Amino acid sequence: MPVLDETILWMIGLSTDIMSDMAGLKNRGKTREDVEERRKAAESFTGVELTTVSRYGFEPELASKNVENMIGTIQIPLGYAGPLSIHGDNAEGDFLIPLATTEGALVASISRGMSVINTSGGARATVVSDGMTRAPVLRTEGIEHTKEILAWIDGHLSEIDAAVSSTTSHGKLIEIEPFPEGRSLYLRFTFSTGDAMGMNMATIASEAVCRLIEKETGAQMVSVSGNMCSDKKPAAINMISGRGKTVLAEARIPKDIVESKLHTTPEAITDTNYRKNLIGSSMAGTLGANAHAANMVAALYIATGQDPAQVVGGSMTLTSCECVDGDLYISVRMPAVEVGTVGGGTSLPCQTEALEMIGCKGDGKAKKLAEIVACTVLAGELSTLAAQAAGQLGQAHKTLGR
Amino acid sequence: MPVLDETILWMIGLSTDIMSDMAGLKNRGKTREDVEERRKAAESFTGVELTTVSRYGFEPELASKNVENMIGTIQIPLGYAGPLSIHGDNAEGDFLIPLATTEGALVASISRGMSVINTSGGARATVVSDGMTRAPVLRTEGIEHTKEILAWIDGHLSEIDAAVSSTTSHGKLIEIEPFPEGRSLYLRFTFSTGDAMGMNMATIASEAVCRLIEKETGAQMVSVSGNMCSDKKPAAINMISGRGKTVLAEARIPKDIVESKLHTTPEAITDTNYRKNLIGSSMAGTLGANAHAANMVAALYIATGQDPAQVVGGSMTLTSCECVDGDLYISVRMPAVEVGTVGGGTSLPCQTEALEMIGCKGDGKAKKLAEIVACTVLAGELSTLAAQAAGQLGQAHKTLGR
Amino acid sequence: MPVLDETILWMIGLSTDIMSDMAGLKNRGKTREDVEERRKAAESFTGVELTTVSRYGFEPELASKNVENMIGTIQIPLGYAGPLSIHGDNAEGDFLIPLATTEGALVASISRGMSVINTSGGARATVVSDGMTRAPVLRTEGIEHTKEILAWIDGHLSEIDAAVSSTTSHGKLIEIEPFPEGRSLYLRFTFSTGDAMGMNMATIASEAVCRLIEKETGAQMVSVSGNMCSDKKPAAINMISGRGKTVLAEARIPKDIVESKLHTTPEAITDTNYRKNLIGSSMAGTLGANAHAANMVAALYIATGQDPAQVVGGSMTLTSCECVDGDLYISVRMPAVEVGTVGGGTSLPCQTEALEMIGCKGDGKAKKLAEIVACTVLAGELSTLAAQAAGQLGQAHKTLGR
Amino acid sequence: MPVLDETILWMIGLSTDIMSDMAGLKNRGKTREDVEERRKAAESFTGVELTTVSRYGFEPELASKNVENMIGTIQIPLGYAGPLSIHGDNAEGDFLIPLATTEGALVASISRGMSVINTSGGARATVVSDGMTRAPVLRTEGIEHTKEILAWIDGHLSEIDAAVSSTTSHGKLIEIEPFPEGRSLYLRFTFSTGDAMGMNMATIASEAVCRLIEKETGAQMVSVSGNMCSDKKPAAINMISGRGKTVLAEARIPKDIVESKLHTTPEAITDTNYRKNLIGSSMAGTLGANAHAANMVAALYIATGQDPAQVVGGSMTLTSCECVDGDLYISVRMPAVEVGTVGGGTSLPCQTEALEMIGCKGDGKAKKLAEIVACTVLAGELSTLAAQAAGQLGQAHKTLGR
Repeated sequence: MPVLDETILWMIGLSTDIMSDMAGLKNRGKTREDVEERRKAAESFTGVELTTVSRYGFEPELASKNVENMIGTIQIPLGYAGPLSIHGDNAEGDFLIPLATTEGALVASISRGMSVINTSGGARATVVSDGMTRAPVLRTEGIEHTKEILAWIDGHLSEIDAAVSSTTSHGKLIEIEPFPEGRSLYLRFTFSTGDAMGMNMATIASEAVCRLIEKETGAQMVSVSGNMCSDKKPAAINMISGRGKTVLAEARIPKDIVESKLHTTPEAITDTNYRKNLIGSSMAGTLGANAHAANMVAALYIATGQDPAQVVGGSMTLTSCECVDGDLYISVRMPAVEVGTVGGGTSLPCQTEALEMIGCKGDGKAKKLAEIVACTVLAGELSTLAAQAAGQLGQAHKTLGR
Repeated sequence: MPVLDETILWMIGLSTDIMSDMAGLKNRGKTREDVEERRKAAESFTGVELTTVSRYGFEPELASKNVENMIGTIQIPLGYAGPLSIHGDNAEGDFLIPLATTEGALVASISRGMSVINTSGGARATVVSDGMTRAPVLRTEGIEHTKEILAWIDGHLSEIDAAVSSTTSHGKLIEIEPFPEGRSLYLRFTFSTGDAMGMNMATIASEAVCRLIEKETGAQMVSVSGNMCSDKKPAAINMISGRGKTVLAEARIPKDIVESKLHTTPEAITDTNYRKNLIGSSMAGTLGANAHAANMVAALYIATGQDPAQVVGGSMTLTSCECVDGDLYISVRMPAVEVGTVGGGTSLPCQTEALEMIGCKGDGKAKKLAEIVACTVLAGELSTLAAQAAGQLGQAHKTLGR
Repeated sequence: MPVLDETILWMIGLSTDIMSDMAGLKNRGKTREDVEERRKAAESFTGVELTTVSRYGFEPELASKNVENMIGTIQIPLGYAGPLSIHGDNAEGDFLIPLATTEGALVASISRGMSVINTSGGARATVVSDGMTRAPVLRTEGIEHTKEILAWIDGHLSEIDAAVSSTTSHGKLIEIEPFPEGRSLYLRFTFSTGDAMGMNMATIASEAVCRLIEKETGAQMVSVSGNMCSDKKPAAINMISGRGKTVLAEARIPKDIVESKLHTTPEAITDTNYRKNLIGSSMAGTLGANAHAANMVAALYIATGQDPAQVVGGSMTLTSCECVDGDLYISVRMPAVEVGTVGGGTSLPCQTEALEMIGCKGDGKAKKLAEIVACTVLAGELSTLAAQAAGQLGQAHKTLGR
Repeated sequence: MPVLDETILWMIGLSTDIMSDMAGLKNRGKTREDVEERRKAAESFTGVELTTVSRYGFEPELASKNVENMIGTIQIPLGYAGPLSIHGDNAEGDFLIPLATTEGALVASISRGMSVINTSGGARATVVSDGMTRAPVLRTEGIEHTKEILAWIDGHLSEIDAAVSSTTSHGKLIEIEPFPEGRSLYLRFTFSTGDAMGMNMATIASEAVCRLIEKETGAQMVSVSGNMCSDKKPAAINMISGRGKTVLAEARIPKDIVESKLHTTPEAITDTNYRKNLIGSSMAGTLGANAHAANMVAALYIATGQDPAQVVGGSMTLTSCECVDGDLYISVRMPAVEVGTVGGGTSLPCQTEALEMIGCKGDGKAKKLAEIVACTVLAGELSTLAAQAAGQLGQAHKTLGR
């Protein structure tokens, strides 16, 4: 039952003779038998026994759209942090947060932050914007031609919408932001994509629009992604204009709780944030300013079937701390939380279970998930800043034997 | 059998009453029974059946240093790309590359790139520098005090080395780069860390050095990580000065192979790279300039037990393309490949098998792994640039049903 | 005739006793006699004869709004480059470009570029966007309060416009872009400011709006400039979203002219631009990608009374080169040309003359000036890239004795 | 007396026929008569009377190495701020700071800051590193060739030093930092350049070294400046590794002086700095974090004959504020103060007088000048932050009529 027929192979540029290189390691099917056969071929090729990767809990056909040449699974330890009390515009309640990680102490540390937040009344969160972007680059003849193309676009927005609609029923084009340069024209399209992360939807719709523009204006699409999107790269444009969900989360920790539970003071945490996250990051030329947002993002993204390469977007988090009337106010601003609750890896069995743990499986849940992401990051930032403020980081890692 | 005793909890700032919040969801042990009991408590709390996550292939005690509150595993589909022919300073031979991903078409696309590279004679790679950094921030009294501290450091390098040696037998301090600012002093330590990724080794050693400096100079360590390290954040300092391994990889693809296998031309690929990766990235304010390096990095890091949050460092890859005598020359420069072949997630059973597939398990293998990472990124970049050059990206995703 | 009375001093925070510190060096008037008296006091204080600075060509009262404590002038050599043939949307004709500089070879080099451009049919230019920004930062109580403030703004745009109108008849508010973060709310206002550079107009209007918001919502303006404006700092937000005028300029230089006049080839120039401006800038973590745009911007800004600190905005220029049918296509994209033709330094006598040389004095000329800036940068980039392509840069400086 | 003879013209790529374009506007000599004749030709060409630019105070021959096609001067109003009490490692005493500007209120505001600093005991400053960089880019055959070139360099440092010495007696090569990428090799050379800003010295020496490397290794120099230098561009590499002088300055302002003289509090200033300079700059994607450092840098650079395009380097200043025992501690870190006290524009008569005002003319003075720059920036930052903290910025500009 070869899923990738020749037509499709051509689509992604695979000719059958190339595929046969891989097929030298046995067939390319999707059943458990196919996978086993292929795994044994891989064992034979590498001389390594692939035992553990083959002991997994679901039928491989379920992953038929998620991977090619499947030989098993990588099993990432799954723990939970929390429960965490969240008061979000979209997430409300106490959530047990699934985290897939191999970094010892991470879950415990996040959980510690959550406990402190809970005792302080919980975390507040909101999604301030939402839209998936794709920015093709077109080749033009130069300034004059570019101006003509831009004028054509301005005058044909309904035709452009129709081109989008021809490719997707869920996606809607929200905005076209043009960036002309020399003989290149970058069009940054922003789409609402429902509860899908939406990048592929955006890609397909963007290409349809570009084909229309090509036909009508003589522009040539050089790439459907011209890197002003910008996907999976640390890009200021996403930090500034947002990609996916832009989310805020905050908590206020009373002074006595900081002292009794975190063994430090609001002033010490604020000072640590100031020197480390703000000045240190500035001097290092960093996009964003945080302690380790990527850790929480990676653990939660992997658990819930998000694209782990989009940890990059999450890594641009800005963490701020202030003393307010003696208490600690802490917040995170995450400009690019690129998540979905349908499609991609979210349909796989383990990942579905993790999503269900936080009530985020399926339609109408993507913003809720984004808020949970931000609150989890908040908890992790709080705990690590507090630990560093108390001078314990190195010692903790040492004792836990990592 | 509680692994985290009270002393350790204190070390990471966990008081027992905080831990008992989590314990409300049952005990915190590491045996399969403990995990099962805890998983059922989580099912009870969330009302969700956690069936698949509980079907995994190894004894959970093996993950005792990798996660807390374990309730099972997240299983990521594992495929392979290749084999890829690599001629590296440290990696030599044909490698079948394990990739854990949920993004359909990714493995196939990378494999396509590898096939083209193989036909063209393979990929060339080298590690140009190697060192793990940690940059504590100290509070000083101002310029005069900072100068005194720096003078003390200059005059006591052997004592500093001794402090390092007291914490680690594998790590060696290579360099101290000071960044004074106002009442803050950032000391960027670079360590050789053998075949461990080495961040924790660097953290512990850095703290020991700072304790010495505190004692001798009156400086106060505000945080053992002052964000000029910079770990898991997109930071120019890592792009410029490197972190972990800085690796180069390259291949030269004859014109006729580009045409017959990639259905485009060297000129078209070069033009795509120019407009997309170079100009587009520049206009987007990106650190690095690539098509989707983070994809390959994430899939290979997850497969081999690396820290997935360190995908951020990999995302700063620079991809360049040139036409050379009619052929396509393509290269990647990866300034921050933060990998290890011992410690962390590399010891887990699935991850060990993946490492063994490429002969990268254990001592003396970290540079080899870094070169394999870079060559895999090279293959993925080649394939995607070629697909975009041929205008097929959106169409491919559409047909594969993602 | 003290111009700075106590009220005004208070406005800029000067109390009279502070001013008297300076007055210890004599009075603070604006007439030539006042200036002379003050200059002599400065001579007395420093023991230096300030002869040449006192020999200038206009009455110092004309500079009464441009400087305090005037003791003379700094005289910057003024040369011209060109004439340059420009075909812009706003600038059309042959322009002799005034350049104030102390860097030998700069004028000659720019002039060389212009000559080549003229022979090739001139430069093409356009202004693609125009608006001056100011971004106050308000302190809020947190997420909930911020949402209320944003809702109030959305519902009271006409009152906000009225607040703007109460401060300026030339400025119009074009857009308010909100950036909420924790207990801070940044509002990036964009104004059309006629032919003034407009920063002060934008500042005053922004403050008026903020006072209104403060009164109605309880927000507190922490600073009328919250650095997301961003004025005189190298900021990605300006590179991406533009500040002042965003301008494009281009030229196509036939192959034979490149060879005969620039002693190199289109391929060599394109390769130089690729390695130097694109890859080199990317690896250096640069905003923009150019050879020396700031040189042209500084020389033209100083000549025409622009704010020389806004050279920073001009330094983010992106220069691109391509071979098109064997010819050289070269372009510049300048995202932040912050210029005016009324107000500020443009009213001073020398600066007025320089503006008149290019027909840019007074109303209706700011976009024309912006195009001339971009075309001048284009010429300078062309000449330097060509010189470097031909390997002559170091040698040229050596021979000219600089 | 044509200074640019044909040989030299060729050196900068000027052929005589190109020069004759300009010569159509009359001769190209350097005497006052030549300048007058040329000015009249420019008047004739533009139809504008160039009266004021022709009334200047020195003989144009003195500018013969600073400009071509001279027709007069642009006269920038020169004021002074201070005196400022500085306790630097290189600058010690009370300095009257010359500032050339057309921005009203700037000098008064800086002077206000200086008065406050004086009352508080003066400013402290130090130069923490010093070196001018130039980074040529060489074309190589790829990784293998690059490694050979780097090995050759490592083995021939004395020959490289000899190549440097053949071009300059003042410059010494301090460091070569290699950045290999694909078929490009960037070599970042750092030179000590005495009291010259030193960029041309560095350029000429770098070219000599590259010619040697070319000859010995087969590398080809594509450009003597590969933009990792990086000159006059906002580049993270300079912020991190420094260029020219890296300078710190600080002051501590007692609480009562902040209140009585600045009409605000240490807390309010610190909060303004936190929200504006740190968080606002971070969210804007800025290199550096300051209020308006470029203003002070531009005014002092223009006054003292520095290169105004290097204001870009100064704009990357980091300003930090803390409350220390109730007082305000303020500091600036300037990573790239690219100044000289010999050569370039420093030899012009007005600029010489300005340098003499602060005792910075000639040999042995460059570091002193750098400290004065930083202390002047410190004063300007203090005054503006205080004014913004007190909510007065817009109002002040309005009243002063700018």
